Amino acid sequence: MSRSDWKPQREGNVPVYRQIADHIKEKIASGQWPVGSRLPSQRVLARDFGVNRSSVVTALEELAAEGILEGRVGSGTRVVNDTWSLLPSLPPDWSSMVDAGIHSPNLSMIRKINEEEFTPRMIRLGTGELSPEWYPRESMGRVLQRVSRKIVSLGYEEPKGLLPLRQEISRYLASIGITAAPSSILVVSGALQALQLISLGLLEKGSTILLEKPSYLFSIRVFQSAGMKLTGFPFRREGLRMDRVRHARASLYYTIPSFHNPTGALMSEERRRELLASCERERLPLIEDDVYRELSLDGPVPPPLKARDSKGTVLYLGSLSKVLAPGLRIGWVVGPEPVIDRLADIKMQTDYGSSTLSQWVAAEWLAEGSYRAHVERVRKELRKRRADADRILRKYWGDWADWELPAGGFYIWVRFRKPLPLHRLFEQALRRGVLLNPGSLYDPGDRSHLRLSYAYAPRREWERGVRIVADLLRDFF
Amino acid sequence: MSRSDWKPQREGNVPVYRQIADHIKEKIASGQWPVGSRLPSQRVLARDFGVNRSSVVTALEELAAEGILEGRVGSGTRVVNDTWSLLPSLPPDWSSMVDAGIHSPNLSMIRKINEEEFTPRMIRLGTGELSPEWYPRESMGRVLQRVSRKIVSLGYEEPKGLLPLRQEISRYLASIGITAAPSSILVVSGALQALQLISLGLLEKGSTILLEKPSYLFSIRVFQSAGMKLTGFPFRREGLRMDRVRHARASLYYTIPSFHNPTGALMSEERRRELLASCERERLPLIEDDVYRELSLDGPVPPPLKARDSKGTVLYLGSLSKVLAPGLRIGWVVGPEPVIDRLADIKMQTDYGSSTLSQWVAAEWLAEGSYRAHVERVRKELRKRRADADRILRKYWGDWADWELPAGGFYIWVRFRKPLPLHRLFEQALRRGVLLNPGSLYDPGDRSHLRLSYAYAPRREWERGVRIVADLLRDFF
Ligand SMILES: Cc1ncc(COP(=O)(O)O)c(C=O)c1O
Ligand SMILES: Cc1ncc(COP(=O)(O)O)c(C=O)c1O
Repeated sequence: MSRSDWKPQREGNVPVYRQIADHIKEKIASGQWPVGSRLPSQRVLARDFGVNRSSVVTALEELAAEGILEGRVGSGTRVVNDTWSLLPSLPPDWSSMVDAGIHSPNLSMIRKINEEEFTPRMIRLGTGELSPEWYPRESMGRVLQRVSRKIVSLGYEEPKGLLPLRQEISRYLASIGITAAPSSILVVSGALQALQLISLGLLEKGSTILLEKPSYLFSIRVFQSAGMKLTGFPFRREGLRMDRVRHARASLYYTIPSFHNPTGALMSEERRRELLASCERERLPLIEDDVYRELSLDGPVPPPLKARDSKGTVLYLGSLSKVLAPGLRIGWVVGPEPVIDRLADIKMQTDYGSSTLSQWVAAEWLAEGSYRAHVERVRKELRKRRADADRILRKYWGDWADWELPAGGFYIWVRFRKPLPLHRLFEQALRRGVLLNPGSLYDPGDRSHLRLSYAYAPRREWERGVRIVADLLRDFF
Repeated sequence: MSRSDWKPQREGNVPVYRQIADHIKEKIASGQWPVGSRLPSQRVLARDFGVNRSSVVTALEELAAEGILEGRVGSGTRVVNDTWSLLPSLPPDWSSMVDAGIHSPNLSMIRKINEEEFTPRMIRLGTGELSPEWYPRESMGRVLQRVSRKIVSLGYEEPKGLLPLRQEISRYLASIGITAAPSSILVVSGALQALQLISLGLLEKGSTILLEKPSYLFSIRVFQSAGMKLTGFPFRREGLRMDRVRHARASLYYTIPSFHNPTGALMSEERRRELLASCERERLPLIEDDVYRELSLDGPVPPPLKARDSKGTVLYLGSLSKVLAPGLRIGWVVGPEPVIDRLADIKMQTDYGSSTLSQWVAAEWLAEGSYRAHVERVRKELRKRRADADRILRKYWGDWADWELPAGGFYIWVRFRKPLPLHRLFEQALRRGVLLNPGSLYDPGDRSHLRLSYAYAPRREWERGVRIVADLLRDFF
């Protein structure tokens, strides 16, 4: 159960513990905490209510005395009764349903990260997102104004998405060498949703997906939840070798050729050619996840693999999340029309299309010049941050770790000179207010990397975070 | 493959058929129509390109002569080669992948409807959506302006959705008798997505879902695609009887108590009490899909079942789609916190949350008074439309069909006095430019109903549509 925004009142003449007991009763009476569910720990309740732990303890004891709660050492406090109901009966067995569902839960560390990101003052050293400081508030204001004049209704949209947006995406793709008519483009709610649709729409249960190791794909559950297997090949700067691939009998090859998550690597032009040629030879479909393409910091990026794809081998993914704003939830998939048709049909079945409002805003951004200007500004800022990060790391972690600076994107893949208990490091850092992304999220066997991102936290915070972690690291070395 | 927006140029000196042939070559060369894929029919290509069929035939013949296309009577034209590539090789076997995916395709009639809705000048007699004329353009303009001042960044959001929106939803729910803290609420991209999350998150494969027959749920594939079974009980005005339910060993009960889709029925207060009590007794979780609640046309609606739910038996669904704008893609699920936590986790895994922009706009609408004013205006218009529809139906279909006017919502469930070949009627009407929603979409065995909606098409169009269908009906009676 998560953070509540209720707080007891200090001024009135009802004692705080009494207010807490009443609040919990109401949670139970309204079915929000049904009989059988477990309460958050005393520590968490005290934090959320903003009170001393002793007030929580008093309230819980009172409710236990009334027969409403039951506490057991080790397993926490449970709701056992709702005495005010006349016909005492049990609620549905939600907890076994929650466990029974088809889709696997997120990795517990990812769940923790998702939650802790919203703890105030947390220093986020690994967050894969642009700093909120760079949000282009004024341009967005102008875009919203223009868009509100253009929109004459916000109905359910065409299966593939708003046509004006698909036309703009088609034009943008042409600028990076990809020929794709609007009918070969599906608008999605971020590139993540594209992966989900591919998983549900194109693969049989038990299919194998090849990928680089480490990879972003190991940190999410989309494919595994649908019963797919991930087979990773060690990532060598240049991607992975096809000779070892042939034996894996895979259904799909997933790659992030530009500013790889988490390593930051940029695949060379030759390697791209080779990879595409091999996949063509093997008739192996390829997902090219290119969401970081625009964030090059040291000059031009080789053309996408998709630009050379004359056979329809590549499904190409793009997104506005990493350059403009993840909160728009706008991305795209590009591929052979029959495949796009199939994915569009499943998209209609899962959410009837992405927010039309977001789609209009995205179209307007792509259409007008200020998008280019925004990208340039972001790149400039990222270049500064990358240099700062390098300096800071050398100063505090230089004795224990190595890294290469990436040519673009957000990430530095820091390698410690010996294996570390990453989970422990994560927990300790969290207690000191620093959120880390351990390498094990991106490669289950990893014990010696952290994914840092220089994009999110402001320079000072970043330095403070690195210093705090240095204090912890000292004990491990 | 769907509508293209490319058109040949009339002015130049390249003949039209030549332009078409070149365009098709480019589609193939860029992998958009890979080797092995099937072209749209000559009729459809001619329509999409805006040319005579003879120009299409000439172009296809030329490409066949070049060995690029191959036509076979009955099975259409296929891409067989891309002669310009040096190493001729086959693309991935997409067509078998498209067939292999886990998620079932939409019902073909639904796919057809999704597509034809965007054919210009189509008269949509059954569309479950407010008329675009009623889109509150000015209020939305003001909301967007206010919102653009409030938004200071558009990052990834908390798993359960934007807190200010959840607070507004919590306040709105209180106004209809439901107690739910923001932590018991999950924001979703429309109520449809809530169903998808429940299907992936709470049910084992092979679970049975009980529902009214007919029901909206039969027209979508969310549960079936995840391997669930739907068991419908005939719908009698008042919902369905619990005695017959006990034997079905179901995992979930799905109901639309207010202005049911497709029948328009409103469940009485007594029946609601009974239903909830029975589900509590059976410990059977209940989904209350209440997306039409605000659209009452004849006075107050009984409180939601959720308002009486002290055990946490009910998952409650709401949405802004039917009252404000489906294009916002904003809805909500309310339930016991551990269940909401689980659904939020899966939501993060599928799309990292709904559009933050849409969430801000939704919060602003709910917070300010103009939402109420908008709802009142919509109700007034719907009342007029309902009366018009009744008059028009009596005039044109009175000899062949019966119906009851609903007390709210959009739908009239028209029953013909004898069974009809609904699929044929659908096809014939479509050819005359009228889109229908046959009863078989909502109950696979139905042969005598149409779901009409008085909400979408303007009065004149509606009348024209009904008249056109009357001409067709005459032949069946
Ligand atoms: C490689 C990669 N692909 C896809 C995504 C998903 O981005 P979105 O769904 O916001 O477009 C991310 C975000 O972390 C990513 O790193
Ligand atoms: C009963 C019912 N539930 C849910 C939905 C889905 O609405 P949305 O996803 O737009 O909120 C509809 C729309 O047709 C409906 O009729």
